[in-house]
Amino acid sequence: MKKQPGRFKAVILAGGSGERFWPLSTPERPKQFLSVFGKESLLRASVSRLKGLVEPEDVFVITSKSLVAATRRELPEVPRRNIVGEPVRRDTGAAVALGTAVAGEGTIGFFSSDQLIARPARFRAAVRKAAALARRSGSIVTLGITPTYPSTAFGYVNPANGKFVEKPDAATAAKYVKAGFLWNAGMFIAGAETFREAFRLHAPALAPLAAKRPSDLVSAYEALPKTSFDYAVMEKASNVAVVPGDFGWDDVGGYGAFERYFPADGAGNVVSGDVKCVESGENICITRGAKVALFGVEGLVVAVTKDAVLVAKKSRVSEMKKLFAKS
Amino acid sequence: MKKQPGRFKAVILAGGSGERFWPLSTPERPKQFLSVFGKESLLRASVSRLKGLVEPEDVFVITSKSLVAATRRELPEVPRRNIVGEPVRRDTGAAVALGTAVAGEGTIGFFSSDQLIARPARFRAAVRKAAALARRSGSIVTLGITPTYPSTAFGYVNPANGKFVEKPDAATAAKYVKAGFLWNAGMFIAGAETFREAFRLHAPALAPLAAKRPSDLVSAYEALPKTSFDYAVMEKASNVAVVPGDFGWDDVGGYGAFERYFPADGAGNVVSGDVKCVESGENICITRGAKVALFGVEGLVVAVTKDAVLVAKKSRVSEMKKLFAKS
Repeated sequence: MKKQPGRFKAVILAGGSGERFWPLSTPERPKQFLSVFGKESLLRASVSRLKGLVEPEDVFVITSKSLVAATRRELPEVPRRNIVGEPVRRDTGAAVALGTAVAGEGTIGFFSSDQLIARPARFRAAVRKAAALARRSGSIVTLGITPTYPSTAFGYVNPANGKFVEKPDAATAAKYVKAGFLWNAGMFIAGAETFREAFRLHAPALAPLAAKRPSDLVSAYEALPKTSFDYAVMEKASNVAVVPGDFGWDDVGGYGAFERYFPADGAGNVVSGDVKCVESGENICITRGAKVALFGVEGLVVAVTKDAVLVAKKSRVSEMKKLFAKS
Repeated sequence: MKKQPGRFKAVILAGGSGERFWPLSTPERPKQFLSVFGKESLLRASVSRLKGLVEPEDVFVITSKSLVAATRRELPEVPRRNIVGEPVRRDTGAAVALGTAVAGEGTIGFFSSDQLIARPARFRAAVRKAAALARRSGSIVTLGITPTYPSTAFGYVNPANGKFVEKPDAATAAKYVKAGFLWNAGMFIAGAETFREAFRLHAPALAPLAAKRPSDLVSAYEALPKTSFDYAVMEKASNVAVVPGDFGWDDVGGYGAFERYFPADGAGNVVSGDVKCVESGENICITRGAKVALFGVEGLVVAVTKDAVLVAKKSRVSEMKKLFAKS
């Protein structure tokens, strides 16, 4: 096949650790394998929604080494060699660099496996627009999500100048939303060469990885810094452009996503599976195993599989990593 | 065998409904089959602790019709005909009357299957003393438990005059304890003829049942009043005597019993099974199935079997019947 500089390729970053949705997800079956939000797993949906935009042989997945086999089973149409496992986690900086190397040429879009997109046609239109802009301008184009509330959980991007800002406090978030800033959803589109150039300029430690897929990933990864792509490149680059997107995006960052995705009962309970709520309100309860009865409780997250049960205070689920800390 | 008027017989009342310990207990395996408090089930232990006091052929059990088979399996040494199932529940009034009929003659002690007794030798000594007093005096002798705190969950008995009083409020309970009143634990010892006479005098509707085991229990039970033995007989009878008992009695009335029976961790959590508590306190968590993690929660009862999970507010477990109300 002739080299096509304009050809669009998609790299899915699928490296979840399984902690935020434990026990529904586990280190062996992290978040991207969750299918509680629909018939498809998040990972499966992240590739399905690219249909029409990219051919299966142009889909690449960067995941953990231990998840390569499961990822290949989930995405049988994606060539086996396109699914690459990182030997250790080095944050999104290394993952984008490795993705650039394995995709090789063309225009590359980076997407997360851990997101919901309610309106995929609008998503594809936005990606097409971003890819065209990237080709035309030589910029790294980010899809900025039109905020639906002043979230403090996301970074923002100023669409006027492409400047990235970190997760704000509540007051600053309100100001950002008022000023028309968009959520940084971690979706980046640029030419392969543009990515490589950005690494060379702003993150030289990652530049060799972006340039060429190493034959020995283990030793290549050993020395890599643990740094996010936002921090390593996007906050420093000047050739950044923004395409706004309003396609029902949700980052599925934790149990709170259930409240955004599923309707609540009259008492504010969001449930999935065989759950009975009696004089209980504002709970999130998901069971994939035994039936559950809540009695007289409020503001809890209860998640049940056949192996494990979580009972947590809803306002503290963002701290769930503490459950897994070595004591 | 020659008729022995002094022979001691024990009737175990084992009619639990399974609601207060749901899901550890269920209507099919109610509280008396729970073995969470030791190696033996509560039912098994209630018979085992009578050893030396009564022969197996003099042990009788009144249970629900649907539980006869399971009860016989649990108590293989007890003759099958001694285990009798009530066709419908008519409270303890009917159960004591039926027990009197099936035990027939001798001195009869009524005991609950739903209790823990930490010091069985002291319990047996108290029963012997009560049986001797019953024979000597012709009284209905009740074992009055020395209170360990001013409970509002039990009725009390005044040892000076054998007068029963209903469950008090907190202030009255404190007064009762100060006055030396004892807990009414629902254990009654008297001659068979004394019981029959008491029914004739105070609860004539139950007297025919106490006099003779009916050939057709279903039609005999249909017309019976639903009334407790305390209310129907003990509160009215004048020939009541009290033997105080201090043998580590607990009525296992609900999940709160776990806090009295098992030691708590430093944060006040009482757990049984594979349970991890992180920044959580004052919970009761029992699992007989999946492992459980509690995170950031307080004052809950969490109970897990392979079929069902309960998450309830600890201060409200006495209202658990609401879970089973037809809606």
